[in-house]
Amino acid sequence: MKKVRAAIVGYGNIGHYVLDALQAAPDFEIAGIVRRAGAENRPEELANYAVVKDMKELEKVDVAILCTPTRSVEKYAKEYLAMGIHTVDSFDIHAGIVDLRRTLDATAKEHKAVSVISAGWDPGSDSIVRTMLEAIAPKGITYTNFGPGMSMGHTVAVKAIDGVKAALSMTIPTGTGIHRRMVYIELKEGYDFEKVAASIKADPYFANDETHVKLVPNVDALLDMGHGVNLTRKGVSGKTQNQLFEFRMQINNPALTAQVLVCSARAAMKQQPGCYTLVEIPVVDLLPGDREEWIRHLV
Amino acid sequence: MKKVRAAIVGYGNIGHYVLDALQAAPDFEIAGIVRRAGAENRPEELANYAVVKDMKELEKVDVAILCTPTRSVEKYAKEYLAMGIHTVDSFDIHAGIVDLRRTLDATAKEHKAVSVISAGWDPGSDSIVRTMLEAIAPKGITYTNFGPGMSMGHTVAVKAIDGVKAALSMTIPTGTGIHRRMVYIELKEGYDFEKVAASIKADPYFANDETHVKLVPNVDALLDMGHGVNLTRKGVSGKTQNQLFEFRMQINNPALTAQVLVCSARAAMKQQPGCYTLVEIPVVDLLPGDREEWIRHLV
Repeated sequence: MKKVRAAIVGYGNIGHYVLDALQAAPDFEIAGIVRRAGAENRPEELANYAVVKDMKELEKVDVAILCTPTRSVEKYAKEYLAMGIHTVDSFDIHAGIVDLRRTLDATAKEHKAVSVISAGWDPGSDSIVRTMLEAIAPKGITYTNFGPGMSMGHTVAVKAIDGVKAALSMTIPTGTGIHRRMVYIELKEGYDFEKVAASIKADPYFANDETHVKLVPNVDALLDMGHGVNLTRKGVSGKTQNQLFEFRMQINNPALTAQVLVCSARAAMKQQPGCYTLVEIPVVDLLPGDREEWIRHLV
Repeated sequence: MKKVRAAIVGYGNIGHYVLDALQAAPDFEIAGIVRRAGAENRPEELANYAVVKDMKELEKVDVAILCTPTRSVEKYAKEYLAMGIHTVDSFDIHAGIVDLRRTLDATAKEHKAVSVISAGWDPGSDSIVRTMLEAIAPKGITYTNFGPGMSMGHTVAVKAIDGVKAALSMTIPTGTGIHRRMVYIELKEGYDFEKVAASIKADPYFANDETHVKLVPNVDALLDMGHGVNLTRKGVSGKTQNQLFEFRMQINNPALTAQVLVCSARAAMKQQPGCYTLVEIPVVDLLPGDREEWIRHLV
């Protein structure tokens, strides 16, 4: 079997876990890692891989797995699609997904390539569950409850507030899609905790949520990459009320994101040119090997 | 918008709920009902529909929703596919799915039609969840726990045993895919309960499960069409252990089966000729209307 040659673009937290997932996959080989620093100060685990500054330095790349910040996904995806390389990303700004899909769809089709976007766990695998539940109980309400887990976006927002030396914002689900924010900070010298806490609570990221700010001696000691989801739907199938559904997970956040990226890279190889979200791809395409064997075991 | 014209084939329990689901769907119209009795003794709720003995008596049918016993699915599907009519069914003999798919795939392609098979909740929507979880945590074990709910197959098996006048077999989940069977029976006159109970426990349907048989005055008074699933997976994403997933539902069984059939009939209209299980169809195709709008709201 010819293996899929994947390049990892960006080598932060997600990139590191994508390396793990590619090494564990039976049908991939690692074409190399593209990072700003190139081979300079290359981490030990990359010793046997091509580590470069530019995708052009790598050979025969089938698919680029973008592990860059969400805001630079479009730029990189366009560049690689134009080279005829498939791309996958975990773009996570929900309100921007439709626009990104339109833009990358045009580029992908022009260059006969495939782009799979927003392929993490939310958006991503959760989206598959939400879509399926909407179909099998068309009337009703779905609530996606996140956590307990660290919110990257909220943590960055806290760090930007004057007087904050280090921060962690935890998302705590209180049901029906409502979340409490537990914010843990270290203070810079000379700042007043009460004033900084008030600034955090007034920030648009927190103003509409129940927010608690705690002063701690060492934020780093609190960090854990576990996260969770509890997604519920109560709805109507046909004319029958009270159909109850729940999807839960408790997971290592970057490890799951990385695994979704890798199985989406595999699915990219099987789609017609264009740009896709995960709900537009048959789930069996996420798996390696023979389709009929999976149908035999899973359906 | 041109509506999809669906025919209901077979008008038992599932057929009745399919009528509900079609009436509630915004994008379907009911071409008619095909049943052995034709219009004879037609139920009140079918007064305004064409009720016929043969599909040929109906006009412009896009898709036939098969609500017949599982064992006659292949015969009907072949007949309608040969007429260029799409088919959907909830064929539920897991070990027979791959063969049915091969057979109907050939017929469907020959006549440029689409067949969606095993489109209930298990096989069906559960299969989508199992497949997705296998992809996002490739190593590990999935357990599908059914119930509490009535097992049609087991109930039929009890009824076939000498001395049983009426029966109900309930499936009770005890975890890790192991099920207890609670069997409720009425006895025919002149039979000994202990002997009949022993025959039930020795039947191949029950011999390997913890089975309890209870004598009750009125089986009918116990009947309830609620059912449930608790599907769990503990697995590995990349090289990260202990990723935990759970999908639960508590549902009206025939209502959910019917709704899955109807959204699969919709999806059939969007696929290339051939035969598909639900894991081979993008979940967004199960929904009516504009794909981009759904992506905006659900992804």
